[in-house]
Amino acid sequence: MENRTINNTMLCDFYELTMGNGYFKKGYRDKITYFDVFFRSVPDGGGYAIAAGLEQVVKYIQDLHFEEEDIAYLRGRGIFDEDFLEYLRNFRFTGDIYAVPEGTVIFPREPILTVRAPAIEAQLVETFILLSINHQSLIATKANRVVRAADGRTVLEFGSRRAQGGDGAILGARAAYIGGCAGTACTVSDQLYGVPAAGTMAHSWVQMFPTQYEAFKTYCEIYPNNPVLLVDTYNTLKSGVPDAIRVFNEVLKPRGLTKCGIRLDSGDMAYLTNEARKMLDAAGWESCKISVSNSLDEYIIQDLLRQGAKIDMFGVGERLITARSEPVFGGVYKLTAIEDENGNVVPKIKISENTAKITNPHFKKLYRLYGNDTGKAIADYLCVYDETVDDGRDLTIFDPEATWKEKTVYNFTAKELQVPVFRNGELVYKLPTLPEIQAYCREQVDTLWDEVKRFDNPHSYYVDLSRKLWDIKYDLLKTNSK
Amino acid sequence: MENRTINNTMLCDFYELTMGNGYFKKGYRDKITYFDVFFRSVPDGGGYAIAAGLEQVVKYIQDLHFEEEDIAYLRGRGIFDEDFLEYLRNFRFTGDIYAVPEGTVIFPREPILTVRAPAIEAQLVETFILLSINHQSLIATKANRVVRAADGRTVLEFGSRRAQGGDGAILGARAAYIGGCAGTACTVSDQLYGVPAAGTMAHSWVQMFPTQYEAFKTYCEIYPNNPVLLVDTYNTLKSGVPDAIRVFNEVLKPRGLTKCGIRLDSGDMAYLTNEARKMLDAAGWESCKISVSNSLDEYIIQDLLRQGAKIDMFGVGERLITARSEPVFGGVYKLTAIEDENGNVVPKIKISENTAKITNPHFKKLYRLYGNDTGKAIADYLCVYDETVDDGRDLTIFDPEATWKEKTVYNFTAKELQVPVFRNGELVYKLPTLPEIQAYCREQVDTLWDEVKRFDNPHSYYVDLSRKLWDIKYDLLKTNSK
Repeated sequence: MENRTINNTMLCDFYELTMGNGYFKKGYRDKITYFDVFFRSVPDGGGYAIAAGLEQVVKYIQDLHFEEEDIAYLRGRGIFDEDFLEYLRNFRFTGDIYAVPEGTVIFPREPILTVRAPAIEAQLVETFILLSINHQSLIATKANRVVRAADGRTVLEFGSRRAQGGDGAILGARAAYIGGCAGTACTVSDQLYGVPAAGTMAHSWVQMFPTQYEAFKTYCEIYPNNPVLLVDTYNTLKSGVPDAIRVFNEVLKPRGLTKCGIRLDSGDMAYLTNEARKMLDAAGWESCKISVSNSLDEYIIQDLLRQGAKIDMFGVGERLITARSEPVFGGVYKLTAIEDENGNVVPKIKISENTAKITNPHFKKLYRLYGNDTGKAIADYLCVYDETVDDGRDLTIFDPEATWKEKTVYNFTAKELQVPVFRNGELVYKLPTLPEIQAYCREQVDTLWDEVKRFDNPHSYYVDLSRKLWDIKYDLLKTNSK
Repeated sequence: MENRTINNTMLCDFYELTMGNGYFKKGYRDKITYFDVFFRSVPDGGGYAIAAGLEQVVKYIQDLHFEEEDIAYLRGRGIFDEDFLEYLRNFRFTGDIYAVPEGTVIFPREPILTVRAPAIEAQLVETFILLSINHQSLIATKANRVVRAADGRTVLEFGSRRAQGGDGAILGARAAYIGGCAGTACTVSDQLYGVPAAGTMAHSWVQMFPTQYEAFKTYCEIYPNNPVLLVDTYNTLKSGVPDAIRVFNEVLKPRGLTKCGIRLDSGDMAYLTNEARKMLDAAGWESCKISVSNSLDEYIIQDLLRQGAKIDMFGVGERLITARSEPVFGGVYKLTAIEDENGNVVPKIKISENTAKITNPHFKKLYRLYGNDTGKAIADYLCVYDETVDDGRDLTIFDPEATWKEKTVYNFTAKELQVPVFRNGELVYKLPTLPEIQAYCREQVDTLWDEVKRFDNPHSYYVDLSRKLWDIKYDLLKTNSK
């Protein structure tokens, strides 16, 4: 994108506007509607996902408006009424939004975000809300997998150059940090969002100098505090590591400096890091950290560690910033209810020939049930908005697809997951800082049993419906499948 | 991204700045360097890719500058010299850029874009250039596959909500258009870039009304010119298509209107479109077009058409806008030469333990050889900048990896593929319009033999080196592999 301001209000599917104009003309403009954002399956066959992208939704909603040039563009399309365009001129969001905080562990088919607003408003915000939540949840979820694979070692996000557009890089780095990365290579993500940016040298630095030794020496003289030298431009073990050791001895040692590192970007990482480690240790550079960066992902990292690779830090690029193995987070935005003229909430359902596309109707509450003895999450529980869960009493839950499978939950605490974000168009939520979100995400993942966290065939976490909600859904299915 | 201007100059990997500061201090600031952008393999195992993203590179280069707030951020990092920061304050691009025009068919290991500039400048622009070319070439290449699968039928890009960030949606729609899509759902891509935006209704429109019939009727009354009704909210064949026909009869027929359509978003598309086609034709609505949109890609489209599905238009979402099957276009940016104090071009090479990562050194020219009798592309030919190809004489080319494999080309025309874009920092290239780029892309693909275009096991198009270039590369390999 060029250096100019894009009005994100116009970042909407065109049908939001044709429908909006239609609702306006039909007198449905103030009809109150409820929409849920939810997703249908966890990317990469994982057991859970991480919610992210809410902060950008908040800023978007606060700034929702049409500029004169936007109105002029729409008029030029020749299908919108002048009174609708006049309405858009004063358009702002007046509804309510509920959402799970960023960093929350989330599961399929539960509402991550719920909009209650007049029809035109609720419809218009669909595209941007989905875009933001889908993109950042995708990257936060992937980052969390990579970070878990690294098993306590540092993971940095290095993928800007392969990202799908500028926002893909900038906000992808933000989402990766939420999922547990320690930092990024992307400078502007640090400047704008405080994601720590780091980076030292490319191969071109080494090639620019008459010799590799001179390249390393110059770098260490300019940046004696924790220089990281890229050792694979010519030959990692024959010249790269020896030149690095020589320069550390010549430049750092006399100054009493010990913090330094080398980075490998090619070759067999298990073999090369072991050999490099031996050479560094033999030369007294036990303090030198080894970083690697070459088409890494959670599986390659697991494999390298299993093979005893000596790695302190992973730079993960394209496979993280694009979530290469499954680059789509399939969040959808579905009408779940409308209010009639008396303010009664009337549940709505979307049937589909693909059963998986059938929605959970109604304005709902989302609870997570935690075991009091373990602190671990037992199940999520969806009920109608006017129900409450009394965690002082046992609760029998059942599988919504195999309703004879019951389970009684006792000695638990029920926690509502969605928080109010907007009320009548006003922000009522204090946005947490990015480090707070990262810490919250880590706590959230800690409430999961290992069975839910494993990469292969994880346990399917329960997301159950209350009896009342299930009955409403079943009735709607029967009535509408004509 | 929020509604604010991001200075894309800061959208760079942090190491561009640490290296820049280093070059500045070392006195390498004005050392002239040459960098090539190239990629190593075609996504999805395809036979060719489509270049895109140059227009955004041009705008970026023209606007390259640091704001005071950027300088302040960098100062806060505590590692940059004040005289370097002062230098950045007046920073602009003063070099040359050569590139293949957008829409050009491109192949692995040939320079898509070449930068000749002082070291700091050439280094700083790396991240954004790669990001822009990688992202848009990825999507243009994928779109071209999808459009070829649709075999003359209309393809629309529908994926904004699943894109990886705002730019992913907006510029992804631009790139999809270059690759051959007829339009997009993304409103702002139309407003900013003239990618035709279209869209009619979501399932929520149908659910908002007491009955589907009323929803359809209201829509047709408001938009009687070519209304497209979504027929799968409840039951496609039992109620969706019959309600659509009833409304077309009631609203369009009396006005003598015949242009209209239905859209299916779920179910078995081969069966449902055949049944729907029969029902529409039997009711006299042969003019009604059938659109489908449900997790489509080039393979599903091919399959549907092979099965005789009756489809006029495809709406392709997440699998196009994220290039889901292979979401990374692996373009890299590598130093190929520097100039010595006398202005001699000194070739540079990057060796690697992964042979595929070895670069083609030197400042080069890129030719494409076309057969005069067929108009088809025969091979691409890389030579040193001071060589020229005389297409009045036969030319013997050879495989750079299997040098004994020779081929003599005769009766051909040699065309240089890169054009000058910037000279001494000034734009010397007239940016074509988006429809011009789309048309050029179509012509380019028409110059390829079918063998290069097929999806499975396409013929590997020749990208050969001149003897002189090959000899220089071989010498550098031997000298530097110590």
